[in-house]
This record gives sequence, C-alpha cells and structure tokens, in this order.
Amino acid sequence: MFKKQGPRIKEIHITPIAIVDPPLLNAAGLHAPYALRTILEIVTDDNISGISEIPGNRDIDIALEASKSFLIGMDVFQLNEIQRVLVQNFGVDKTTDRGESPWDQRKLVHIFSAVEVACMDIIGKAIGKPIVDLLGGKLRDRVPFSAYLFYKYEGAGGELGFNTVSNANGWDAARQRSALNPSEIVEQAKAICAEFGFQSIKLKGGVFEPRQEVDALFALREAFGASIPLRFDPNALWQVDTAIKYGKEMEPILEYLEDPVRGQANMAVVRKALSTPLATNMCTTSFEEIPNSIAIGAEDIILSDHHFWGGLRASITLAGICKTFSRGLSMHSNSHLGISLAAMVHLGAAIPEMTYALDTHYPWQSDEIIVGGRIKFEEGSVLVPTEPGLGVELDRIALAKLHQNYINCGLTKRNDEIEMQKVNPGWKFQSVRW
Amino acid sequence: MFKKQGPRIKEIHITPIAIVDPPLLNAAGLHAPYALRTILEIVTDDNISGISEIPGNRDIDIALEASKSFLIGMDVFQLNEIQRVLVQNFGVDKTTDRGESPWDQRKLVHIFSAVEVACMDIIGKAIGKPIVDLLGGKLRDRVPFSAYLFYKYEGAGGELGFNTVSNANGWDAARQRSALNPSEIVEQAKAICAEFGFQSIKLKGGVFEPRQEVDALFALREAFGASIPLRFDPNALWQVDTAIKYGKEMEPILEYLEDPVRGQANMAVVRKALSTPLATNMCTTSFEEIPNSIAIGAEDIILSDHHFWGGLRASITLAGICKTFSRGLSMHSNSHLGISLAAMVHLGAAIPEMTYALDTHYPWQSDEIIVGGRIKFEEGSVLVPTEPGLGVELDRIALAKLHQNYINCGLTKRNDEIEMQKVNPGWKFQSVRW
Repeated sequence: MFKKQGPRIKEIHITPIAIVDPPLLNAAGLHAPYALRTILEIVTDDNISGISEIPGNRDIDIALEASKSFLIGMDVFQLNEIQRVLVQNFGVDKTTDRGESPWDQRKLVHIFSAVEVACMDIIGKAIGKPIVDLLGGKLRDRVPFSAYLFYKYEGAGGELGFNTVSNANGWDAARQRSALNPSEIVEQAKAICAEFGFQSIKLKGGVFEPRQEVDALFALREAFGASIPLRFDPNALWQVDTAIKYGKEMEPILEYLEDPVRGQANMAVVRKALSTPLATNMCTTSFEEIPNSIAIGAEDIILSDHHFWGGLRASITLAGICKTFSRGLSMHSNSHLGISLAAMVHLGAAIPEMTYALDTHYPWQSDEIIVGGRIKFEEGSVLVPTEPGLGVELDRIALAKLHQNYINCGLTKRNDEIEMQKVNPGWKFQSVRW
Repeated sequence: MFKKQGPRIKEIHITPIAIVDPPLLNAAGLHAPYALRTILEIVTDDNISGISEIPGNRDIDIALEASKSFLIGMDVFQLNEIQRVLVQNFGVDKTTDRGESPWDQRKLVHIFSAVEVACMDIIGKAIGKPIVDLLGGKLRDRVPFSAYLFYKYEGAGGELGFNTVSNANGWDAARQRSALNPSEIVEQAKAICAEFGFQSIKLKGGVFEPRQEVDALFALREAFGASIPLRFDPNALWQVDTAIKYGKEMEPILEYLEDPVRGQANMAVVRKALSTPLATNMCTTSFEEIPNSIAIGAEDIILSDHHFWGGLRASITLAGICKTFSRGLSMHSNSHLGISLAAMVHLGAAIPEMTYALDTHYPWQSDEIIVGGRIKFEEGSVLVPTEPGLGVELDRIALAKLHQNYINCGLTKRNDEIEMQKVNPGWKFQSVRW
C-alpha cells in the first residue's frame, strides 16, 4: 500500500512537437504544414511516468518550463494544491486573453490541463485503474465522435505541403484532395464516414461567402439523408443578420449551429431568432464568461475542451453547470494526436449528459506518438481504454522524430493568417466578415 | 495491483440508530430526546468495509433496503453508474419534495450520499489514500467550524429528557442548561467556545419573537467583540418586512444572515434591501433551484450539505457553481456523529472557496459510533484525517447500543412539531410566523 504522501513529481519533460497537418481552411486563415503540440511527461520518485498533450505554443512551453521549479517534489494526488500553486505563480487567466484571437492562447488553463492529465495518468497507473474511474467511472464503453469536414486546398501537409501522395487511397487519398465547393465537401464526407463510420457530420465554415457554405450543408443533407445529424460552424465570422437569414434557411437540417456570430450579445440575438440550438467554443470559453452567457441566453450548448477549461476535473464541473442550467454539452477539438484523444475519451465516458458526438480533428492527422500507432474508430466511436491511467504509452522514437519536425519547421505558435498570406498575399484575418 | 473491475459490493448493512439529543428549539418545534441517523456499511467481495451516516428516516431506510437488489455486485469505483442505476430505480427527487417541510426528506439525494460516501471510504482504503485525496487533495490541514447556538429547554435529552446530569461540568453542564433569553445564549456561547475554541458563532433563531432574538445577537456582539463573526438564522420564519427591519438593525454586526424569509422570491427582496450577505439552506436546496436563485439574486451564500446535495462529488460541483457565479459557500448541518463529521471535513478540506467556517451540531451530541470516541476540536477546527478512506472506523458495540436506542425510542422520522406539542399542547408549525 501507499505511503501517506506521494507519488511525488521527480522530473518534468516538456517536448514541443510538430505534426503533419493538411492545408485546412478556416476563418483565421490556413493551417500550416505542421500543427504544433506539446507533450508533457511527468516522472515520479517511484518511477511512474504520466503523459499529456496540449496545443503547442512557445510561450506556454516556457511557462511550463518555469513551473518545474515549484512542481517538482509535489504529490501527484494533490491536484487542488498543484492548481493553487500554479494560480499563485501565473495568476488567473484573463478572459480577455482569449479575446479576438481565433484560438485560445491562455496560459494557466493549458498548463493546468497538461499537469493534471499527466498526474491523473500517474494516479491511474499507481492504483491500477483507468482515468475514467478517477472521474466516477464510465457510463459508456465507446465515445462517439462526429465527422469534421474542412474546406481545404489540395495537399497532404508536412514536407509535401500542397502536394499529395500519389499512391494513397481511401481516406488517405481523400484527405489530401482539395475541397473548395459543395460537391467536393460531399465527397470528403463520404470518404471520412466510410473510413471512420461517423454517425454525424460537422462542417467548419467561415471560409467562403455564406451562400456557398449553406449550399454545402444542403448538399450533405441530400447525400446523407435526415438520419445523419449535421452541424455547421461559421467560425464566428457572420454578422447577426447573415446568421439569422441563413440560420432560418438551415433550421430544417441542422442539429446545431456553432458560433455563427462573434460575442455573447450577438449570439443571444441570433438564438432568440432561431429554433436551431446554438453551440459555442468561441463566445463562452471560460468559467468567468458563463454567468453572462446564462443571464442573456447566449447559447444552448457549450463545446468544452479540457485543454482550454483547465483539465478533466474542471470539465466535470463544467458538465455539472451545463446540466444545472439545462445547457447541452459536447467537445471542441484542435489538430491533435492520441494522447489528447485518449483524455477526451475518458472524460466523454464519465459525463452523463454528453449528449452530442464529440468533435475531433484526429482523422486529419497521420502522425502518432503513442505505442501501437493510430487509435481505431469503430462506427465513429472510440473504445474507452481499460488499461491503468490514460491507457496509452509514449512512443519515444516517434516523439524524437516529431520533435525534430518541430525544430526543422521553425514554427513557434499557430498563425493561420501568415500561412494564408503565403497563398493569398495581403489576406487579412477579419473577426467578422459577412 | 487491482483487477480491472472491482472491488464489488457484496453486502450492504443498513442500521438505524437513535442518538441522545437535547431539547433544542427551532422554527419547526423541539428536538426529540433522540435524533435519528442511519448508518450504512458496505462490504466488498475482497472484504473491505466502507461506512457512511445520513439523517434517519424510515422511508429512506426502506428505499436503501430496496436498493440492495441492484447495488450488490456493482464495482465501488463506478459511482456514475451507481448513480444512474439509483436514478433509474427511484426517479429524480422533485424539488417540491423539499417543499414547506422544515427539513429535507428527499430520498435520492440521501441514498446517493450514503452509498457514495461508503464507496469512497472503500476506494480510499483500497488505494491507501484519505477521501480528501479522491477529491483532488487537501488545501488545508484543519477545517474550521462555527459555534452553533440554540435556544433550548433545560435537559440533556435521551432518557433524561428534560432533566440534567447533576455532576456534569464545563460544556457538558452548559449544554444541558436552558437558554431562553439573551443572557443564557451568551452563557451558552461562552461555554461552547471555551470547550471547542470556535472562532465564529451562529445562533439558530425562529423560536422567539424577533426582538428577543436580535437582542441576543447584540448581546453576543457585546460579549465577544467584533473579532468573532456572528451569523443568525431565523429559520425562514420571518416576513419580508420583518427581515428588512431587523436585518438593517443587525447590518453592523452580522457576517451573514441565513434564511431570514421563506422562498427565493422573498430572499431576493430582502437581499436587495440589505448589505449583509444572505445565506440559505432552505430556499435553494437543490441543483434544480439554482438557476432561479441566480436569475433573481436570491442569496449570496449556499450552505451545502453533502447529505442533501447527493454526495461529496456533487458538492464539489456545487462549489464550482458557487465560484463561477460568485456565490459564497459553507456547510449546513443536522444532529450528527463522527462519520458525517469526517465526511464534512474531507470535503471542506478539498474545496478552495470554503470561505466560511462550517456549521455543525456535533457539540450537542454526546454519543459516538466511531472507534476512539468523540472527535476533538482544536481552536474550533477539526484535523483532516490522514488515514485511508474516511479515516474513522465503526465501533460495533456503540452501533448495537445506538440501534437498541432506536428500537426503544419508537421514533421513525424527525417530527419537531409533535415533540413541541408534548410541551406546549396545540402548538402548530407555521412556515412564516412574524
């Protein structure tokens, strides 16, 4: 049996990696050939190793590096105290740090997510239980995900950039092809659903003028029928009038409409005008923003993300808030590998009210960093790991290779605007476009 | 290391007990000579035993008995699934079940609290960690409690009824003396603070007309000075005008005013009129009632109670809701023994925002059911147990004796109105009195 305290943190290893990412389009611009992630590994005094994965950003890596000095020696079970110490040293994130930026760059939530998941991986290994059992245990054996469609340029990403692998087939070939109009989006949807078995479909919009993107949704409906729920995310790029006009047109075919406009106040106006539920991961992105969201009725569904909400336990609290205030809950995703996916699956299995299939970029990635390679989907779902902790182990050869990618590619943080300018000189990110 | 599943529930023992309770007065009437509690013991297939304590009520005991048929065989780590099965079998408590009743008699929250705490006691023992470490770990070594003053008749309760033990001294003597006016309340406060070292004081009111009770508060202030925070609970018995009038008078001396009036709407009116924070355990008593509490601004502080909010993990969610919506948090109590106290202390140690000393009736009890006898207070605080699980063990001789008390006393549920009628024939509980 255990000592009263510990296991204690002995080492912390922070490894930035770059993973191949195809030229996907969104409101912020274009995905670079590599997406950045940071891999955290914590090793305890009794040599248990725990891992986690967060979005890559050099500023956050530097802060993680700085956190070593006060985290080393701490008991991995003392997650509340670890959080207290992190808040004490980094201060609480300001909601404005999220601000107009197209993605989340707040430090504390990322750091706490990274440290908490790695500690929970260790706790799970130490007690011989999967992480889901540290969250009250699983309510489902498989966690369902949604197909995540993107407008994209032709290309595989990585060294290939805008080129493709000529002998690829199936989804491998499809995910390299361009998708710049409704019929190419339908082809992409067919390929991704054939490969992964997804039972619902989301289109990331905010790329083309609204008419074309709305037409893509109707083309998907025609191709897949009413039994496959459709979601659409204009990436907060529409004006209120645009959102209401096209929102009404899409009412018969959408499961939910995600961030049609920017800001809670605008969301509340659109929500009053539409019967389609509104979801968000851009307008309500922190606990601090929830009171106003509830007060003005800004949205129906929160797309949580344990990387952005401060970890798995905070996400359980968020789920409790959503249930209490009759808000739906699902999950947001960025380009990610199997460590993040495993964490999402443990969390998704433990939340009673996880009523919508989760988002994941995972099909767009081809790299992997865990032993055994890419995680399998069956009928759009991922089996909840039953091994202790996260249930995935670091492939150290892959880690070294992907870290070398990071060094070689020269990227230090995500900037889709700069990538877009390489293709379309003078292109500028606009927070509201149509 | 563990099997992938388990430990599994093999036996469930439900033992109603009756504990000696002095003739304390409140808005609902008079405490009976015995307060009822139910002790739950769960034994696993690998013979780990976990315990819990909830308010005693035959209807809830019967429901607990019925729950055996579907709980036996379940894995104690699967708390989410256990909750799902309990909801499936008993249905969700209706908030109206709380209703006008002076105390909480909802089934599901009590049952889930009983089962969850016992399971977490087992989990803690199985992994060699105190329950606080299953809640993210402790943020403080000691959890502070408040002195809980009561108007009361002379008497020790139990077989002695309204008689006292002649050779008692110190707090033992003081807690048997009557307290029916401000000066007796001050004497009671001095004795309880001398014995337990409490650093804050709460008076349970709703017994006498407001003037007398308010005078008691001012007498306490005069006796203890401004460094000892004072709280006052009129037990939801006042009209709005009364609450505003006396609330304003007490503004300079109260840390918070608890349930001055009945119902969220009335609380919101009083809250607007006063600068003193309002606390509640009677007007907002469930997650279902929180949205309206927030919407209308019914109160500043929720007095949580893991027995009434569905367990320790639900209480963590409640704490997250309170933090998110800038509500304070503390804890409510009923007459209880050391198993409930230990659970409260583990929970109180894990919640960052537990900013107010907790309520406890514990000083009013003289029985104990745990090995080692009564839990010690130091400077009003209880040391967080560091042993695995709850850190307290069942004293089986005491359990048998207190169960015999239950059989002998003939009580099956709390009814302070009937007890009061034995002293004051024709007395009737009124939900609003002054």
